[in-house]
Amino acid sequence: MSEPLSSSRAAKLQKPFFVGVDVGGTNIKIGLVDATGQTLAYQSIRTEQDKGAEDACGRIADVVRQLVDQAGIAADGVVRVGLATPGPQDIPSGMILRPGNLPGWWDFPIRDRLSKRLGLPVTFANDANAAAYGEYWLGAGAQFHSMVLLTLGTGVGGGIIIGDMLIEGAHSCGGECGHAIVDARDDAPADSAGIRGSLEAYANASALIDRVTEAIENGEVSSLAERRQAGERITPLVVAEEAERGDKLAHRAIMVTAHWLAIGIVTFVHTIDPDAVVLGGAMTFGGASHPLGREFVQQIRDEAKRRMLPPLRDKVQIEFASLGGDAGYIGAAGLARQEHRKSR
Amino acid sequence: MSEPLSSSRAAKLQKPFFVGVDVGGTNIKIGLVDATGQTLAYQSIRTEQDKGAEDACGRIADVVRQLVDQAGIAADGVVRVGLATPGPQDIPSGMILRPGNLPGWWDFPIRDRLSKRLGLPVTFANDANAAAYGEYWLGAGAQFHSMVLLTLGTGVGGGIIIGDMLIEGAHSCGGECGHAIVDARDDAPADSAGIRGSLEAYANASALIDRVTEAIENGEVSSLAERRQAGERITPLVVAEEAERGDKLAHRAIMVTAHWLAIGIVTFVHTIDPDAVVLGGAMTFGGASHPLGREFVQQIRDEAKRRMLPPLRDKVQIEFASLGGDAGYIGAAGLARQEHRKSR
Repeated sequence: MSEPLSSSRAAKLQKPFFVGVDVGGTNIKIGLVDATGQTLAYQSIRTEQDKGAEDACGRIADVVRQLVDQAGIAADGVVRVGLATPGPQDIPSGMILRPGNLPGWWDFPIRDRLSKRLGLPVTFANDANAAAYGEYWLGAGAQFHSMVLLTLGTGVGGGIIIGDMLIEGAHSCGGECGHAIVDARDDAPADSAGIRGSLEAYANASALIDRVTEAIENGEVSSLAERRQAGERITPLVVAEEAERGDKLAHRAIMVTAHWLAIGIVTFVHTIDPDAVVLGGAMTFGGASHPLGREFVQQIRDEAKRRMLPPLRDKVQIEFASLGGDAGYIGAAGLARQEHRKSR
Repeated sequence: MSEPLSSSRAAKLQKPFFVGVDVGGTNIKIGLVDATGQTLAYQSIRTEQDKGAEDACGRIADVVRQLVDQAGIAADGVVRVGLATPGPQDIPSGMILRPGNLPGWWDFPIRDRLSKRLGLPVTFANDANAAAYGEYWLGAGAQFHSMVLLTLGTGVGGGIIIGDMLIEGAHSCGGECGHAIVDARDDAPADSAGIRGSLEAYANASALIDRVTEAIENGEVSSLAERRQAGERITPLVVAEEAERGDKLAHRAIMVTAHWLAIGIVTFVHTIDPDAVVLGGAMTFGGASHPLGREFVQQIRDEAKRRMLPPLRDKVQIEFASLGGDAGYIGAAGLARQEHRKSR
């Protein structure tokens, strides 16, 4: 048994409590939060997707009980759980469909199975949408009425929130911004979902790597070529390192990513007209605290502004996310809180 | 004075009543509708934009009084007016900003001026958004929870409605779908708002005309070349006529328009994931009642489906609008009704 919270800390907590669960291909993040979003207790466990979804539901339920103990709150203090998983999924029926990164979990009624394990109602959401809601509730979007989040990494995910309403979509595909088309050519590269010319196909991690690899193979001089020749695997982190050290190819490849993001952002802005577009995920090159991250976002802002409708140019904010990898479980808990408040 | 409505008709009307006003560059459409959207009386007047917006407000107010008389309802039966104008505009403050087709009306506080003339509260909206709301309320979208409308003509307008909420946008630019970018090249053609590579730049009326003109000038054999040589102006209607008669160029030019619309639609579907995308406006080639219109929409459906995320392919509907040129004033009245119901 862990220590109960000190009375001074406990006094500031706002009932009721919620649990947020963010299932990824590698880890499952589980957090117990209060009604204001303050995290009381948190644990990350391995997904171990090969053991299947039922096993994971059991392990998630165990962790939730541990977190409740650890936080020293009453067992009935948690009123609802938010569960975020990768798409595709069927939100209304609580089903995981056939996500590429969870091959052993296909066609599984995860919402109801987890609910049964916990004896608690569960709110089901897409992982990128939950991250967007997390940023909207407590992060970079907390000051805004409406927001589009783009999560940049292996994939390009998205989430759209307008006036506290998450755009879940009529078929659980709302906010799949990475699959917006930015290049209509029939021979454009396809993304992980097979969508040709999509934003993801041009702005994800492998597009960056492909871009530098192609240039190296075409004989471009670059410190990346040397590291590759020394047997090193070129990752976005390696590209970022060399860009910071002044390598022209590495720098240009990152700025080309910024170009494609600007194109997509202009489309989202002309469609949704949000207060802000928020950029999260691993492919943000250090974010606001890093010169390369700041140059990256400034490049996006400059090109997006140049291409935007005049009334929007000085109004739409383009900012970095602030919750990092916690946005998903926090947002899942926030969506649980929203549903709890609606249902009362 | 016009005849009062017969008692059998009047008995079916649902109080309260609303007026919808749809201001265009050429005409202003004004309709008096009941709470179910039934039109009691209607009139279209010339915009006469050179006389200025204040003059138009006076003429609109006169027509509203005539319509109330004509319908035989009590003068206080109308509780709110909906007013739709072309963008750009500032919805919260009720201002027309600087629309290209209303040069004499720039920076005019039209909502409050019309409200003062009528002694009634006025709900202000973008014209394409009002048309979308009209289709959502009473037209092709009446069966759906969420809908994207594209209006095809000189421009490509748009409107997005999710669960009775119109996406007005944080800066009154919500649903400007025609300005989504479908071609990211720096030398892509620009649309009327100066946005390069936008859907409008590829799918509006002048893009169609430019496409056939260029082919003719490059020596392509076409009945359009003959009509042009005979001094006729090539319009979308002329292109449609020749396409129906089997002219290959005319047919191909229309199907290229369909191609670009499919690209844009896939982006909107992956972003919003609506139940349906609805196509309205003059550039719908006769719509569902015409073989060319049916081929046009089928081409859009086929290409959009081919490019869409698999879970959406057989689910998102792509349909023609059904209210024609009445969608704007009906939707404006519907938005007035929505605000009236919220404010009670």
